Amino acid sequence: MTQIYDKVALVGLGLIASSMFWGIKRAGLAGHVSGYARSPETRQTARDIGLCDTVCDTLGDAVQDADLVVLCVPVGAMDDVARDIAPFLKSNATVSDVGSVKRAVIDAVQPHMPPDVHFIPAHPLAGTEQSGPTSGFAELFDNRFCLIVPLENTDPAALHRLKKLWQGLGSMVETMDPDHHDLVLAVTSHTPHLIAYTMVGVADDLRRVTDSEVIKYSAAGFRDFTRIAASDPVMWRDVFLTNKDATLEILGRFTEELFALQRAIRTGDGQALHDYFTHTRAIRRGIIEAGQDTDAPNFGRAPKK
Amino acid sequence: MTQIYDKVALVGLGLIASSMFWGIKRAGLAGHVSGYARSPETRQTARDIGLCDTVCDTLGDAVQDADLVVLCVPVGAMDDVARDIAPFLKSNATVSDVGSVKRAVIDAVQPHMPPDVHFIPAHPLAGTEQSGPTSGFAELFDNRFCLIVPLENTDPAALHRLKKLWQGLGSMVETMDPDHHDLVLAVTSHTPHLIAYTMVGVADDLRRVTDSEVIKYSAAGFRDFTRIAASDPVMWRDVFLTNKDATLEILGRFTEELFALQRAIRTGDGQALHDYFTHTRAIRRGIIEAGQDTDAPNFGRAPKK
Repeated sequence: MTQIYDKVALVGLGLIASSMFWGIKRAGLAGHVSGYARSPETRQTARDIGLCDTVCDTLGDAVQDADLVVLCVPVGAMDDVARDIAPFLKSNATVSDVGSVKRAVIDAVQPHMPPDVHFIPAHPLAGTEQSGPTSGFAELFDNRFCLIVPLENTDPAALHRLKKLWQGLGSMVETMDPDHHDLVLAVTSHTPHLIAYTMVGVADDLRRVTDSEVIKYSAAGFRDFTRIAASDPVMWRDVFLTNKDATLEILGRFTEELFALQRAIRTGDGQALHDYFTHTRAIRRGIIEAGQDTDAPNFGRAPKK
Repeated sequence: MTQIYDKVALVGLGLIASSMFWGIKRAGLAGHVSGYARSPETRQTARDIGLCDTVCDTLGDAVQDADLVVLCVPVGAMDDVARDIAPFLKSNATVSDVGSVKRAVIDAVQPHMPPDVHFIPAHPLAGTEQSGPTSGFAELFDNRFCLIVPLENTDPAALHRLKKLWQGLGSMVETMDPDHHDLVLAVTSHTPHLIAYTMVGVADDLRRVTDSEVIKYSAAGFRDFTRIAASDPVMWRDVFLTNKDATLEILGRFTEELFALQRAIRTGDGQALHDYFTHTRAIRRGIIEAGQDTDAPNFGRAPKK
């Protein structure tokens, strides 16, 4: 039990904030955690399930006296929220976020920050396909990376403290430049999500294959796409709108590559297909060796022998 | 314990055949199970782990006297195997298969079948990203669909018996026309696999994002693609070569749809993105309600509360 902050304020009470709360409680990382959500229903749910020590009805109440304020709202809402909390921030407080895009969040938040406040963007690489205040759990960040994106002139002590928080939540912390962050995430997350959404949309739209057939026979590969494509629509809309350039770049590469494979299918070039499919196996092995997935078959859906 | 066949022969000893063997033993569905694999190493491994009651060194030994012969080889090998087993088949035997494509298997196998043999194609919709004789487990087919594709004039008694076998292995059995099967699988399996392979290939090929970054930060969505893209390369090469038309059709639809979403990103059309992403959530719910996946977050990787 190492308390790192006296008071932490969580703004927005979805999957990430609720998991942070349970994780903070698990490790005793903060003396008090306040929470705010824009929707009265979400605030009520939070109160019902004991999410946050205090659930506040206004942003000002939630963030005042907080040593750390974490913005856990969709990227598109960061600008407004940053503007609205600014007058209430304590001197020397740290403001951070958990957004999936970093350049756009910096552009939205930084101009509103008072000079005596430390703004340090962050992005925990963890999530599930579920959303909302009831979806969180303390273990979400265990053994996952959290990327912290310090700005020029970031106070080293404030940075160190934020790192300790994320380590206390179970994460492995690394720092990264914002533009490189956005490119890496376009590859590992944003483009895969767009592709999954697209494939699920195509399946739903076909006249000759019924939805019920798609659903029944999904275990053959498709269901893994539907999990990804079940994620929060608002969050993902904002990701694509705010990480436009990197996503479009990776999509361009993807389409180019897909056309090459499509051509191999059309011309019956089995050797090209076999070589491609063999090569991609190695990456999977790397991910398992890095501890970022299980090697139990089928994600552990299948029972072990 | 309901024995359905006196002797079953499994030709090819990979994930599906080895799971069939353990499932047959679990439920006592056959008196004797023989097995054959082309590679001496695979046969030796099978003997070492007790896979099959008898592991035979020749195809003829494996299939002779068998009441049911199941071809568990890649689709591209079906033609040769069907030709080679034909002289040894018992009168009134059933020959079936587990190939992911049905029209091409029918075209490859049917011409070799003696008139007194029942050829009934089948396709269990189950698998993992692992392959080989040690990858099988008895529960693989539990609660999964098995699509049986009877030909014209299929003997009803032989069909009934094969259905009973798959039900005994835990599957829900349905029958389907071969061309419709190939289209449905192009949607639910073949195209998703090609897309996953492509995305993994793109990630591996980028100069500005290192492989180690891709691997470390894969939990953000990408790792689900790598699981799919780790499947057996020979099997998938043959799938795309033999289900060319349906795969190319669905790929064409996919590309069309992807371009529409890409355009929405480029033009900043947040409403179009949001609507699309909201719609795809419903399909996920259908799959969970149909019992074809778990609603535990993250495929059950995350601990339950």
